[in-house]
Amino acid sequence: MNHRFHERPVFPRGFRCASRNCGIKESGKDLTVFISEVDAAAAAVFTRNHFPGAPVLVGRELIRSGRLRGVVVNSRISNVGTGEAGVANARRMGAAAEAEFGAAAGTFLMSSTGVIGLPLPIEKIERGISGISRDLVDDPLVGAEGIMTTDTYPKAVSCSIGDATITIVAKGSGMIAPNMATMLAYIFTDASFSASQLGAMLRRAVDRTFNMLSVDTDTSTSDTCVIMANGLAPDVDSTEFEAALVAACTRMTEMLARDGEGASKLLRVIVQGAVNETDARTIARSIVDSPLVKTMAYGADPNVGRLLMAVGKCFDCTIEPDRLHATIDGTVVIDQGRRVDFDEPDLRRRLAGDPIQIVINVGLGDATATAWGCDLTEGYIRENAAYYSS
Amino acid sequence: MNHRFHERPVFPRGFRCASRNCGIKESGKDLTVFISEVDAAAAAVFTRNHFPGAPVLVGRELIRSGRLRGVVVNSRISNVGTGEAGVANARRMGAAAEAEFGAAAGTFLMSSTGVIGLPLPIEKIERGISGISRDLVDDPLVGAEGIMTTDTYPKAVSCSIGDATITIVAKGSGMIAPNMATMLAYIFTDASFSASQLGAMLRRAVDRTFNMLSVDTDTSTSDTCVIMANGLAPDVDSTEFEAALVAACTRMTEMLARDGEGASKLLRVIVQGAVNETDARTIARSIVDSPLVKTMAYGADPNVGRLLMAVGKCFDCTIEPDRLHATIDGTVVIDQGRRVDFDEPDLRRRLAGDPIQIVINVGLGDATATAWGCDLTEGYIRENAAYYSS
Repeated sequence: MNHRFHERPVFPRGFRCASRNCGIKESGKDLTVFISEVDAAAAAVFTRNHFPGAPVLVGRELIRSGRLRGVVVNSRISNVGTGEAGVANARRMGAAAEAEFGAAAGTFLMSSTGVIGLPLPIEKIERGISGISRDLVDDPLVGAEGIMTTDTYPKAVSCSIGDATITIVAKGSGMIAPNMATMLAYIFTDASFSASQLGAMLRRAVDRTFNMLSVDTDTSTSDTCVIMANGLAPDVDSTEFEAALVAACTRMTEMLARDGEGASKLLRVIVQGAVNETDARTIARSIVDSPLVKTMAYGADPNVGRLLMAVGKCFDCTIEPDRLHATIDGTVVIDQGRRVDFDEPDLRRRLAGDPIQIVINVGLGDATATAWGCDLTEGYIRENAAYYSS
Repeated sequence: MNHRFHERPVFPRGFRCASRNCGIKESGKDLTVFISEVDAAAAAVFTRNHFPGAPVLVGRELIRSGRLRGVVVNSRISNVGTGEAGVANARRMGAAAEAEFGAAAGTFLMSSTGVIGLPLPIEKIERGISGISRDLVDDPLVGAEGIMTTDTYPKAVSCSIGDATITIVAKGSGMIAPNMATMLAYIFTDASFSASQLGAMLRRAVDRTFNMLSVDTDTSTSDTCVIMANGLAPDVDSTEFEAALVAACTRMTEMLARDGEGASKLLRVIVQGAVNETDARTIARSIVDSPLVKTMAYGADPNVGRLLMAVGKCFDCTIEPDRLHATIDGTVVIDQGRRVDFDEPDLRRRLAGDPIQIVINVGLGDATATAWGCDLTEGYIRENAAYYSS
């Protein structure tokens, strides 16, 4: 491990951001730009949802060039299910940012996040972009503020490898079960890599981190994860860079999980001993997604038999009931497929903590996987029973 | 339709039941027997969970004979994850009922439902079975009471075809996402069919009804659905019988969905126009399982873009976004894949009702499917955050 995390997030060389309220939210920032002072090599992954938002449709086109100057994002309205008008609005949003910063056409990626199906208030956004170049600052958390929807705090992490830095700014706390992509996550680095190198590293990192995060099994129509590398730092070893990228994505994944809608704690599920990686991932996600496991964690109720249920409902996985072993925060609760006697008051105390770490050993092979999620609380219901109207 | 439902459930000829408190629950009935006065042809489907309870393991053996006299059930402790001792206890439970009723060995199917992983209190159950033959009554709801866990009321439906009757007694309101089986459901009829005829009809009916019910996506380790036909009624046409069986299972499915843990209303999702039945079923279940659709129904919040998300996350289904059409309780909310303007206050009033019926037309083929579920409320969290301890 040659990377180290910064206590407070900073931008890599040449990156800055700005955010504003442009009138989509009644109060609070709803518009953000991130920009590199020079063109950056870039790659991205997007949602697999069949109803991708207009920014995703346009973004898939833009990213083919492998170069970006910046990203422009609004929150509160997602520009999904809006047809041709939505696509035209997404293009106007990118063009407005390019004009403001004197950037070439097609070098600003745009994202929109929020309620699905409503028209994008493009005039407000265009007015908001106008003059925003005067507000640029070097604090990633300022940009993080303008992309929040139900997040309770702005999220950014920074990590350095040698003389280069990786910074991730992200949002998303509900409608999160990414697949081949993630919520909105913007990764900036001053390291120097080609777009195709970045794309390969990004896909591998996302597959092990953001794609193993699930707050509620609902896959957003706007998931976007983009990486921009402007090459302003001295060379860095690609193996070390990729390790740092995975570490930074893991840390951001845990931040997003812990801030899941209504969540009171992070769940980390590690599956070992599966016959192959597909099984390991399926089992880990089944546990982290199970409402009955999630409510057990919330209630600190040692109803550990639910782990058998959640493993056992992976119909297509290879499982031999007598081989299963499980621990919760280090306490053995299942051995040879059977609940064992354990110190209940002690486990209850551990379950009341944060995070909860569940380790399942399937006992059949060498494959492992980790999934991240959160508990399920009344807060999730409250936030989502009136999200549209609030 | 030649079948008619009874206003109050009754037993077919020759069936009776009894229920008691045998001391597993502090109060309330926790032990039930159902019995036919003569041996009945029988068939069953069980959970696909990899950790089936001991009663399921023994039940799969017993049902091979194609004959049963009765069923014995306890609630509160499920006898799952209990190893060889659990299997021995399940056999003792069946044997005790056979002795009490003078029935041949292997003619009583047993079920246990409740907390997973704890040992079955077999002595209490044996003492409870002793003398229970003196309590037999002809009211199915009395038997339904003894099999309840988190159900808020006992559930039974009866339906007659010609001179024969079908009666279903069932329980289950959480950990419900059956697959090739269901919660606990006992189907009794005085019609005359062979075990193999019953098995085929049961599998077809369950596939379209109980297997399309999901309260929380969690598949129980104890799901059991058994049918007993004692042949005491005059002959009935098998096509009419099967139609009545499907109608009765559908009605019970809706009762179970509406009484889902914490639920305030039934969700019925009808998918039309899919390219094949697998797609239709997958899409219907995706919608009925989506926490964001469920909370929208609970909050009566017309956040209809979530339907696009829930259809769109069926990655492996054939979907053309521009073809999608959707209604909620008759109001068109999506057309050509886009949210349409609708009367919001009116839809809000409709969403406040019960049931909510969502019809999705994929616009690509002829396949249809229906799925049933319920809204997601604070009540689900409260019940499941302390189920073990309460």
